[in-house]
Amino acid sequence: MQADLPSTTAGAVATTRRVFKLTLSYDGGAYAGWQVQPGKRTLQGTLEDAVNAVTGQRTRTLASGRTDAGVHALGQVVRLRVETRLESDTLKKALNAHLPLDIAVLAVEEVRADFHPIRDALRKRYRYILYDGRDRQIFRRDYCWQVRYPLDAAAMDRAAKGLLGTHDFRGFETTGAPRPDSVRTVMDIFVRREDRQERGFIVMEIEADGFLYNMVRSIVGSLVEIGRGRRDDAWPRRILEAKDRKAAGPTAPPRGLFLVRVDYS
Amino acid sequence: MQADLPSTTAGAVATTRRVFKLTLSYDGGAYAGWQVQPGKRTLQGTLEDAVNAVTGQRTRTLASGRTDAGVHALGQVVRLRVETRLESDTLKKALNAHLPLDIAVLAVEEVRADFHPIRDALRKRYRYILYDGRDRQIFRRDYCWQVRYPLDAAAMDRAAKGLLGTHDFRGFETTGAPRPDSVRTVMDIFVRREDRQERGFIVMEIEADGFLYNMVRSIVGSLVEIGRGRRDDAWPRRILEAKDRKAAGPTAPPRGLFLVRVDYS
Repeated sequence: MQADLPSTTAGAVATTRRVFKLTLSYDGGAYAGWQVQPGKRTLQGTLEDAVNAVTGQRTRTLASGRTDAGVHALGQVVRLRVETRLESDTLKKALNAHLPLDIAVLAVEEVRADFHPIRDALRKRYRYILYDGRDRQIFRRDYCWQVRYPLDAAAMDRAAKGLLGTHDFRGFETTGAPRPDSVRTVMDIFVRREDRQERGFIVMEIEADGFLYNMVRSIVGSLVEIGRGRRDDAWPRRILEAKDRKAAGPTAPPRGLFLVRVDYS
Repeated sequence: MQADLPSTTAGAVATTRRVFKLTLSYDGGAYAGWQVQPGKRTLQGTLEDAVNAVTGQRTRTLASGRTDAGVHALGQVVRLRVETRLESDTLKKALNAHLPLDIAVLAVEEVRADFHPIRDALRKRYRYILYDGRDRQIFRRDYCWQVRYPLDAAAMDRAAKGLLGTHDFRGFETTGAPRPDSVRTVMDIFVRREDRQERGFIVMEIEADGFLYNMVRSIVGSLVEIGRGRRDDAWPRRILEAKDRKAAGPTAPPRGLFLVRVDYS
């Protein structure tokens, strides 16, 4: 499914197939997610159209992970295999010139031929933005989850800390076929208010060696239940122990979620 | 033009016509400006639809000023005259429930019958956001003017300071019929970088006792000419002295402009 398609053009002068690591930022609001789907506007499809415009080749790209519809990225990593003689920096500028204003190529780096953005990833970091202020948020409405009740961010942070370390996270994998291996290691997680006001923006960040499907949004949904006082802060540990997807809280909406970065060795 | 229309409904119980001062925040991106225009989606029309939904009355509102298409507000002030027995806070909640997510009523205050949001305004404050960073801005793309060249924010600030005080600003009134009185007093103006990086977001703020049509965007367009080194920082003073609209720089795009607040006695 992710195999390269043959390139549709061949230059008059032979050029070698090269491999690039692209770092992308995007606003996922206008896209049906990362992955190419027939008849839908996707991030992958839009990127591959830009690659085609720049290089004359239709080639399949591979991302570190497929973000869902509405999820954003500050530093998604994508493998691009293409025949070109362009320098990395020129390729970056040319791609940006062909991309819409809600996608940016932040970096282009030529990498070794066997670079694999999924297999080689050591850590991934996600951020989720919540808002519990009294006034409707106008300008960040597509980039946060506005909840109607005040949240206890300190209780959410204590609860989140219970997820640190290596656990079987299948209780937080809310949809799709369960993976054979659902053990992941969370290296960092916190919940804190963005400013010093009593109510307003709350940031949650989590870094792990990998994530199950909907894991971050499921964790956030559960933490919000704790923040509004409907569950105690030991609940996430009990969800881990239950290993049952029905044990977790609701899934937080995609618009508050950002893939912050992916680290490689 | 701004006179009230007769209300279309009269309650079974007589209620008195009351006057409210509304403070609104809105994202102007999806609107053809403040003022009602036939067949167009406007902020005023959307607000008046919400008023109608809440009170059953069609009444004409009056804003402190008509923001152009694409201009945003953090604290626009609007007069609402309506027959209702709702408390201010209830009216605020009811209006918010009927307004789309890109408009928020921040405050509702009952005021004296002769309150006039234009005539009674003492000061207005505007903010303009510029971006001269290297990487495309994804998430604030509708809320700033992205310029392609690095700007000298210190030179822009020095030039802006030349506009402080009382002057005839007709050189910065870029379109429309000239007003008979184009003398205004600027009480505060500055240009500074939002963060400590060499390139990135730049904030310009200006406070005055009144503004001519397109005055802020014309000042910003001229300051950008200075920031990129095409004009010296004494240029704004010369535009004031010339009193000729052809003397000023280009008009900055609306998406970077925010009406911050309007002060009343």
